[in-house]
Amino acid sequence: MKWLRFTHAGAEGFGSLEGDTIQVHTGDLFGEHHPTGGTLRLDEVTLGLPCKVGKVLALWNNFRAAAEKNGWAPPTEPLYFLKTPNSLAAHGSVTPAVAAEVGRVAFEGELAVVIGQRAHRIRVDEAPAHILGYTCADDVTAIELLNRDPAFPQWTRAKGFNGFGVLGPVIETTLDLSTAMLRTRVGGRERQAYALADMFFPPAELVARISQDLPLEPGDVILCGTSLGVLPMKPGSEVEVEIDGLGVLAHRYG
Amino acid sequence: MKWLRFTHAGAEGFGSLEGDTIQVHTGDLFGEHHPTGGTLRLDEVTLGLPCKVGKVLALWNNFRAAAEKNGWAPPTEPLYFLKTPNSLAAHGSVTPAVAAEVGRVAFEGELAVVIGQRAHRIRVDEAPAHILGYTCADDVTAIELLNRDPAFPQWTRAKGFNGFGVLGPVIETTLDLSTAMLRTRVGGRERQAYALADMFFPPAELVARISQDLPLEPGDVILCGTSLGVLPMKPGSEVEVEIDGLGVLAHRYG
Repeated sequence: MKWLRFTHAGAEGFGSLEGDTIQVHTGDLFGEHHPTGGTLRLDEVTLGLPCKVGKVLALWNNFRAAAEKNGWAPPTEPLYFLKTPNSLAAHGSVTPAVAAEVGRVAFEGELAVVIGQRAHRIRVDEAPAHILGYTCADDVTAIELLNRDPAFPQWTRAKGFNGFGVLGPVIETTLDLSTAMLRTRVGGRERQAYALADMFFPPAELVARISQDLPLEPGDVILCGTSLGVLPMKPGSEVEVEIDGLGVLAHRYG
Repeated sequence: MKWLRFTHAGAEGFGSLEGDTIQVHTGDLFGEHHPTGGTLRLDEVTLGLPCKVGKVLALWNNFRAAAEKNGWAPPTEPLYFLKTPNSLAAHGSVTPAVAAEVGRVAFEGELAVVIGQRAHRIRVDEAPAHILGYTCADDVTAIELLNRDPAFPQWTRAKGFNGFGVLGPVIETTLDLSTAMLRTRVGGRERQAYALADMFFPPAELVARISQDLPLEPGDVILCGTSLGVLPMKPGSEVEVEIDGLGVLAHRYG
């Protein structure tokens, strides 16, 4: 099942998507809600973030192929940072180009996990019930800024500019993690193509482990990290992140 | 002028503090508001966070004395990370002790800057008009977790447990940064005593520089970093952070 949020005739709403038809719902996606009976065509609406998003945690070094190629030791625990709220942006958005002194900016196509029910100190076998579903993400990164200061990697800053956390287009509640591929295209050219099964810590493991540290709330998002193929983008680049079964997240940089 | 938020008879409110008397206000602290005419005594209410808090950025290596003692190069730009929303806690709160495997936990007494008006790409001379005021902070840190992974300093995680971002008791709109001292006491014993004038990047500079990266919104908070004297705490420790003119922020760890 696919959930999305939209703007139509100046009002925000949410609903489920079947083909190109939105079944409009009312209520709280994470609580009680029901169909209004109304429908909209996908091409009549502007997509927003796929839900009301809370905090966004994002992983470093969570794919075996990237760790091997870069010579990173396998992590013994999830290594995460936090994205700023202002970085969040929807499918179809334009990420403003940063100032020249910030340096080069790269795409990072990622799987995003959307929390559906509060998770605090849960076991891994309990985690799937706390996940609402999955969406695509571009965890945009100012790659030169990240390590510009030798004493302090600037994760928050390098990942925190306006429009650097692109999520969407929908939340799909069902995903076969054992077979799904993620592909990132820039200007139509494929730059990333990796199997989600290659994660050190798959979603249920991430949710359970991170929930030992802090409570995860409905609408919180975990970006699962990226794999090989990350490259800087020229202003004007059209980026697409596609995950099998989830659709295509598109945005422009600059 | 001192602003605070409180709970009284089950309802939240805000107001200004004169002596021990709260002048209750209605409206939006960051927008239109006015006194209701009602008053409450400070000892009748439970203090909350001093305002509705947005994102919380926090500085590393912002005090000359700490940099010199630790051998850190003076920073060429503000070096910041982001605190998690769940870490926020009010004056009088109890910070839950972390699990034994997390390791030792330290206090960090800090000055907190509260944004009053949106600031995006502003100049340093414009910054004071965007600052509502100042409050005290304890930027609690799991110091062993921070560098447990040699490849990835875990700032977000080490600073992100429940109750690790204590703010209060009030927002003071006037503060003489050239003379004010910050003192941290643990169990009544003074452990930190440093001059706020010792910052590499004082508040107006922080607001202006960080606003080049991302928009700062009303209620956003910048923790200015700590100086010498940070130590681990035993569970049961009573921590007080006092800044001249701002009052005393008290909380317990564990």
